[in-house]
Amino acid sequence: MERMGSGVVSWLMRIGESKPGSAQDPVDNLAMFIILICACIITGHQLKGFRWINEPIIAIFFGLGTGITLLVLTGGKSSKILVFDVELFFTYFLPPIIFNAGLQVKKEHFFKNLMNIMLFGAFGTLISFFITSFGSKLFFETLGIGNFELKDYLAIGAIFSATDSICTLQVLNQDELPLLYSLVFGEGVVNDATSVVLFNAIQKFDLSHINAMIVFKFIRHFFYLFTASTLLGVAIGLLSAYIIKKLNFGRDSAYHELALMILMAYLSYILAELFEFSGILTVFICGIVMSHYTLYNVNTLSRVTAMHAFATMSVIAERFIYLYLGMDALDIEKWKAVSKSPGSSVGTSTMMLSLVMLGRASFVFPLSFLSNLLTKSERDKLSLKQQFVIFWSGLMRGAVPMALSYNQFGKSGDDNKQQANAIMITCTITVVMFSTVVFGSLTTYLIRLVLPPSDFENNTHSSEPRSPSSSTIDILPFLSNYTIQDLEEDDRISSRKISRLVLFLSSPYNSVHYYWRKFDNAFMRRVFGGRGFTVHLTSSPEETLEHSLLV
Amino acid sequence: MERMGSGVVSWLMRIGESKPGSAQDPVDNLAMFIILICACIITGHQLKGFRWINEPIIAIFFGLGTGITLLVLTGGKSSKILVFDVELFFTYFLPPIIFNAGLQVKKEHFFKNLMNIMLFGAFGTLISFFITSFGSKLFFETLGIGNFELKDYLAIGAIFSATDSICTLQVLNQDELPLLYSLVFGEGVVNDATSVVLFNAIQKFDLSHINAMIVFKFIRHFFYLFTASTLLGVAIGLLSAYIIKKLNFGRDSAYHELALMILMAYLSYILAELFEFSGILTVFICGIVMSHYTLYNVNTLSRVTAMHAFATMSVIAERFIYLYLGMDALDIEKWKAVSKSPGSSVGTSTMMLSLVMLGRASFVFPLSFLSNLLTKSERDKLSLKQQFVIFWSGLMRGAVPMALSYNQFGKSGDDNKQQANAIMITCTITVVMFSTVVFGSLTTYLIRLVLPPSDFENNTHSSEPRSPSSSTIDILPFLSNYTIQDLEEDDRISSRKISRLVLFLSSPYNSVHYYWRKFDNAFMRRVFGGRGFTVHLTSSPEETLEHSLLV
Repeated sequence: MERMGSGVVSWLMRIGESKPGSAQDPVDNLAMFIILICACIITGHQLKGFRWINEPIIAIFFGLGTGITLLVLTGGKSSKILVFDVELFFTYFLPPIIFNAGLQVKKEHFFKNLMNIMLFGAFGTLISFFITSFGSKLFFETLGIGNFELKDYLAIGAIFSATDSICTLQVLNQDELPLLYSLVFGEGVVNDATSVVLFNAIQKFDLSHINAMIVFKFIRHFFYLFTASTLLGVAIGLLSAYIIKKLNFGRDSAYHELALMILMAYLSYILAELFEFSGILTVFICGIVMSHYTLYNVNTLSRVTAMHAFATMSVIAERFIYLYLGMDALDIEKWKAVSKSPGSSVGTSTMMLSLVMLGRASFVFPLSFLSNLLTKSERDKLSLKQQFVIFWSGLMRGAVPMALSYNQFGKSGDDNKQQANAIMITCTITVVMFSTVVFGSLTTYLIRLVLPPSDFENNTHSSEPRSPSSSTIDILPFLSNYTIQDLEEDDRISSRKISRLVLFLSSPYNSVHYYWRKFDNAFMRRVFGGRGFTVHLTSSPEETLEHSLLV
Repeated sequence: MERMGSGVVSWLMRIGESKPGSAQDPVDNLAMFIILICACIITGHQLKGFRWINEPIIAIFFGLGTGITLLVLTGGKSSKILVFDVELFFTYFLPPIIFNAGLQVKKEHFFKNLMNIMLFGAFGTLISFFITSFGSKLFFETLGIGNFELKDYLAIGAIFSATDSICTLQVLNQDELPLLYSLVFGEGVVNDATSVVLFNAIQKFDLSHINAMIVFKFIRHFFYLFTASTLLGVAIGLLSAYIIKKLNFGRDSAYHELALMILMAYLSYILAELFEFSGILTVFICGIVMSHYTLYNVNTLSRVTAMHAFATMSVIAERFIYLYLGMDALDIEKWKAVSKSPGSSVGTSTMMLSLVMLGRASFVFPLSFLSNLLTKSERDKLSLKQQFVIFWSGLMRGAVPMALSYNQFGKSGDDNKQQANAIMITCTITVVMFSTVVFGSLTTYLIRLVLPPSDFENNTHSSEPRSPSSSTIDILPFLSNYTIQDLEEDDRISSRKISRLVLFLSSPYNSVHYYWRKFDNAFMRRVFGGRGFTVHLTSSPEETLEHSLLV
């Protein structure tokens, strides 16, 4: 036992002393990360009942703990244990999370909320971006920190506009508050896409001599990226549906169709990055399209597996990212550089946190007011309590700001910027840690405070909170996610047919939805498949399986 | 369209001109690989009926085609398009393939065949290793090629002893020839493990002054690695079963248990590599243990997903490896170095191919004879036709020899070895290409020739070839793989109980199996779960689901 203990210590020392970036022996780091992710999942399961703790916080603490252990074991020698690898994050860990989001989102609620989602996610993020940019410019120039250019301030605005709503989504229950959930969820994804697009546009454009023409071009470029990314996502999603429908893989090569789905989903992201679009937006849209068409062209088993497998990949990627964030917080060299002027560092972090809150508040409440003006139905309007939940869900900052910040300020550039760069990195680390741990741990408490369970019924037809172990259907979390609900949806749609004319006039969403349904059934499903269309699926034994699964 | 075409060309040129190893922008390469893997899967599906073509050949040709295209587009400038990344292969692509093998193997047949598997896989590989080593020593010294040391010849022996039985397994049908399939399959995995262990042992030991003591130590080390790897695999497999059983994840966090399974499977491989055991053997054993315990401690949906998801990962990894092999074949610099002495290069390749065949033949037939002597039951003896299939299945060489060869001869060492090193690399490429493409494409034809479908019944209780689309059960390829068969197995076991005494004396396998079953039921399943043991599973709705899936 003792020998084993000293073995572990010497192993950890080896990890600590290995240079970051030198990928000569990834086995050590891999083993450590895998053990830590397992520990996070197990601890997360054990601490499920605790109100103040959530999965990101657990992972961050595990990361911090490991980082400190390594630091102590190597006697502070390894000044950088791990440097946040921007590429690793954007190329391998973000895509599965976002794709899974697109695949699992309840399309009905998402599209019902589309106006609000775009309003908050795109327009709101722009407002937050401007406030953060000019707030930080004012602050830095007043205190005389660093020699930042306009470009840097705009980058700061983009960096700190990227929210991380994972904590909030863990608390909100999709079944209890479907509309609010889809709004927070959709806004989160659109927000990520918007801030990354903004950041890339800032890096690309020469903003030193700003004028109306450049601003116009910038806005045009922004909209171009948005549209192109969406179209690419739709195109690859439809292509995957078409190919898998045409090929009609047999039952014995079921994993071939699943492999194609995974590869094409990833391809959508990679192609978007290649064309310099927004991969986040593309892969999200691709997920939505795939969940509407492709998922129904594969056999039932592949369908269930796909949902389940993507959720699993997303879980692993999320834990990894938070662990990484925790370990990364100990970038000693940067902290040393900052320690010469501790005042300005604390000041900057406090200021950025205030700007984050200010930026968020200054669009959530006005835009909610605007949205309520445009909404006719009284029950679809956003109550003040719901507005608060939306406000709160956007306060956390996560891996995206971290990655963008390293991208902008991580390079060791000219000397007169180095101090300011170090301040920005440590400030980002502080904001991410503080918001995730402090704001994150308050989330459950606050949401249950403003939205007690009795408030839930005004948004859902079944107000009962589902008890996880009481019904048979619960063992099929993913199946029930789409089949049962979709079947219900179908029923509702057919029974509504008579009153279609009334709805037609009263609600713009419903009429658009009605025409989309018609077009979808008449043309799209004929070409791209989708639920219940293709003959060989309807009459096949799979329907029997699906039926028996639902009994 | 034209613009798009030129865009593709300039993109390919960019890929071609990017330096290998400089991982600055992986997006280009990733996009290319994903598109190619998709193309392989689609083409493979379309060409399913063709007898001379199989998946590895398609992937290799796609790889070669892309390599040539890149080479032409860059005007031969990019001398190395891709250098085989040994680490990438062993760390990321091999583990899922081997783990999937362990998970999907039919345990009953595997353990029934264990003696033969170890005989061919371990002892046979050693024979082949000695013949290849001393054959190449004789050849090189006679022709005076290179200044190789004994160590290099031994490495050559280990490199060319690693078979690749994927082609053969694609032709053999597990349901038609279960025992032969499990023998070829098991031998392939044990062979991989043996040759990698051998190779590592050779690199570690100082073999310049060989004597009896060193040989003894070498053999002891070899057995130590074998035992330690097996024990580690069992330990991690059991640990995963225990943890997942204890935690009893709810239905709503089904993907957490799946994530734990994936991570712990990978952990077994990584830990084995960390301790310098054989990761291949460890992860294979871990897969077997997990399929016996862990798979039954998760809910039915996770179980189905796990089987399906691992098979999918394996498919993607396999395609990737063969694509890589194809592209890698165009290592221009090495070919240029070799072109100074084309005769010795062709000679070496021919000699190595002959040695591969000789090495294989010289243990398959003698060991089959030995195995037949030890087997009492007439129907379990290996017929000459089956011996030929075993012989043939070990002629193909794949990614493992390639990786080992780059490891041994890929470094640019001292000058007087450089020519010989280049010859060995190109020789490995030639052997891998030739054996996979030529031997591989003959496989279907030859196996159908020596084992026509009428020969199949002597090995299986259900002799009917299953038609893939006729029965309902076929839509559940993975479920049926383990549940139905295992249920049958159970029935048979209980009905045999009376005649146990008779069997006890007549067959050593059955008596060992009987005691194992007793121990398994009395102790192992109580602690580690497994099929049908745990109460909360038996009485839960999942059993109902499982039942309805099987109806």
